[in-house]
Amino acid sequence: MPELRKDPVLGRWIIISKERGSRPVDFVVEEYATKGGFCPLCPGNENTTPPEVLVYGREPSSLSNTPGWNLRVVPNKYPALVIEGDVDKEGVGIFDRMNGIGAHEVLVESPVHDETFIDLPPERMVQVFWAFRDRILDLGRDPRFKYVMVFKNSGRAAGASLEHSHSQLIALPILPRMIVSELEGSLSYYKYKERCIYCDVIRQELKEDIRVVCQNDDFVTLMPFAPRSPFEMWILPKKHSSSYITLPDSSFHSLTEIFSESMRRLNACIPNVPYNFVLHGAPLRSEALDYFHWHFEIRPKLSTIAGFEWGSGFYINSMPPEDAAQYLKDAIPA
Amino acid sequence: MPELRKDPVLGRWIIISKERGSRPVDFVVEEYATKGGFCPLCPGNENTTPPEVLVYGREPSSLSNTPGWNLRVVPNKYPALVIEGDVDKEGVGIFDRMNGIGAHEVLVESPVHDETFIDLPPERMVQVFWAFRDRILDLGRDPRFKYVMVFKNSGRAAGASLEHSHSQLIALPILPRMIVSELEGSLSYYKYKERCIYCDVIRQELKEDIRVVCQNDDFVTLMPFAPRSPFEMWILPKKHSSSYITLPDSSFHSLTEIFSESMRRLNACIPNVPYNFVLHGAPLRSEALDYFHWHFEIRPKLSTIAGFEWGSGFYINSMPPEDAAQYLKDAIPA
Repeated sequence: MPELRKDPVLGRWIIISKERGSRPVDFVVEEYATKGGFCPLCPGNENTTPPEVLVYGREPSSLSNTPGWNLRVVPNKYPALVIEGDVDKEGVGIFDRMNGIGAHEVLVESPVHDETFIDLPPERMVQVFWAFRDRILDLGRDPRFKYVMVFKNSGRAAGASLEHSHSQLIALPILPRMIVSELEGSLSYYKYKERCIYCDVIRQELKEDIRVVCQNDDFVTLMPFAPRSPFEMWILPKKHSSSYITLPDSSFHSLTEIFSESMRRLNACIPNVPYNFVLHGAPLRSEALDYFHWHFEIRPKLSTIAGFEWGSGFYINSMPPEDAAQYLKDAIPA
Repeated sequence: MPELRKDPVLGRWIIISKERGSRPVDFVVEEYATKGGFCPLCPGNENTTPPEVLVYGREPSSLSNTPGWNLRVVPNKYPALVIEGDVDKEGVGIFDRMNGIGAHEVLVESPVHDETFIDLPPERMVQVFWAFRDRILDLGRDPRFKYVMVFKNSGRAAGASLEHSHSQLIALPILPRMIVSELEGSLSYYKYKERCIYCDVIRQELKEDIRVVCQNDDFVTLMPFAPRSPFEMWILPKKHSSSYITLPDSSFHSLTEIFSESMRRLNACIPNVPYNFVLHGAPLRSEALDYFHWHFEIRPKLSTIAGFEWGSGFYINSMPPEDAAQYLKDAIPA
């Protein structure tokens, strides 16, 4: 069983999960299923993954876990956390641990092996965003889970171990440190100003218009003032909302539109860019929060986190976001 | 001039430094001077780096910035922060910035291009540890600087842009986030227990003896209970001390001995392991702190920081530190 452990000084939790190999030799070579090799996410290989928990676009005549689908969500075969068991917390001398309870799912975004997320036509990309919502809603019913982290690794440099386009989600029994920090930081601002800091950022960015990449009626894509990585982008709803799952049905196409345009501009600028994105929203079962604002964060993986960043928590970025935003505005989305 | 910028939600500072290229194309290919190519750190090429600020083992007949040295410290030719100027802090609407004032130095650990840090014989490795101390002492006289972060990137995967063995240091006008967190976390424990948490960790680890890699009279190398990376190691002085620069002269050989043994065990286990290490000590000009304990953190670079880690601050580690410690104890140091 995987295990959650807490650093006694920093209060930072980590996951110890031996599923992916735990001998020194396992760290030397990484596997990566490229076109031509065996791919567990391709149609016809459904029996090599755990059974699907969600499927869209399944042909009426087809059976579960067989070909004939547009998008498929399955439990990760090598999960970082496992779904069965209780969250037992215990002390080990001065240390703290708990069972590695959670859910780890893979969202297969396309039946076509080499169709990337950026390639998806709007009517299929929107299904990815629907699936995020549906899985968060479903997992949120389990009282053991406090948060569902939705994320995507695209490209080997960004940590993808499979080439076939997919995103992932991990349901966690504790709030992740980064979300706690965002909640605390935005609450602290709210207490002082009685305004949402993200709303204030959006207002200032739209007015200054030097870090805005693109916008539509509902959303804006901007480069943060203090980005950790070159070409880092955030996509935020213009209207205040703390939780992704409350996004009205009518806004999903608008989200797809801006996400697609942002990624196509990035890809036009840096072809085949490896990247990650994550969804940050309020904790599961939270009431609407006046001080927090859900958003996507997109990190093109263009730099290495080396000793300085790792040891200081301080990032060095060689690309001012104002320049990056201009490059993306000038790019012609493919 | 580089710039420091603060994330308004998280309070996290980043450095914007355009020195290393700032067009999209610059992110596609990375340079890496391998054996056979031109190396600015090799003897004979001293004129391609800024003039040396510290040198050890210079032959009496040789001139500064010419061959004939064992170890050489020079300002980084492409510094993340610059030494000239004032730390002007200013607001930009709701954002905060300051000038990128600091020092960024390169410590060339050997005149021999392909002699690695791990290869260094004790009487030369000790010079590296002396140099860390001497540079921290010197830079600590500049009242603009609050902290000197000493770090090493070894191997391209760990962020090294030059093959020739070197470490680096960056003097910063603000305390890095990670140090602030360690100081706050250990102070909070001290207020409750009136003991140093690191001393308590060392006591428990030596007693349990399941995460200890090696030890001598003065130091212990252990795997932390909640490591972010496989085979992460910490080297701590057994006797409480908050600041590296107060390490007595007599202990430098002992530090060299344990550092060398730890790294040789690691390298025997995972040949040519890419790694980072960082030195964490008290802030510059700090009085002796009862609650904080200086240490080195060593991170073998064996995993990728992907979307989940980046977006959550939560690390997944597939190697339990107890197993890793056993592998290293069983290894025969090369």
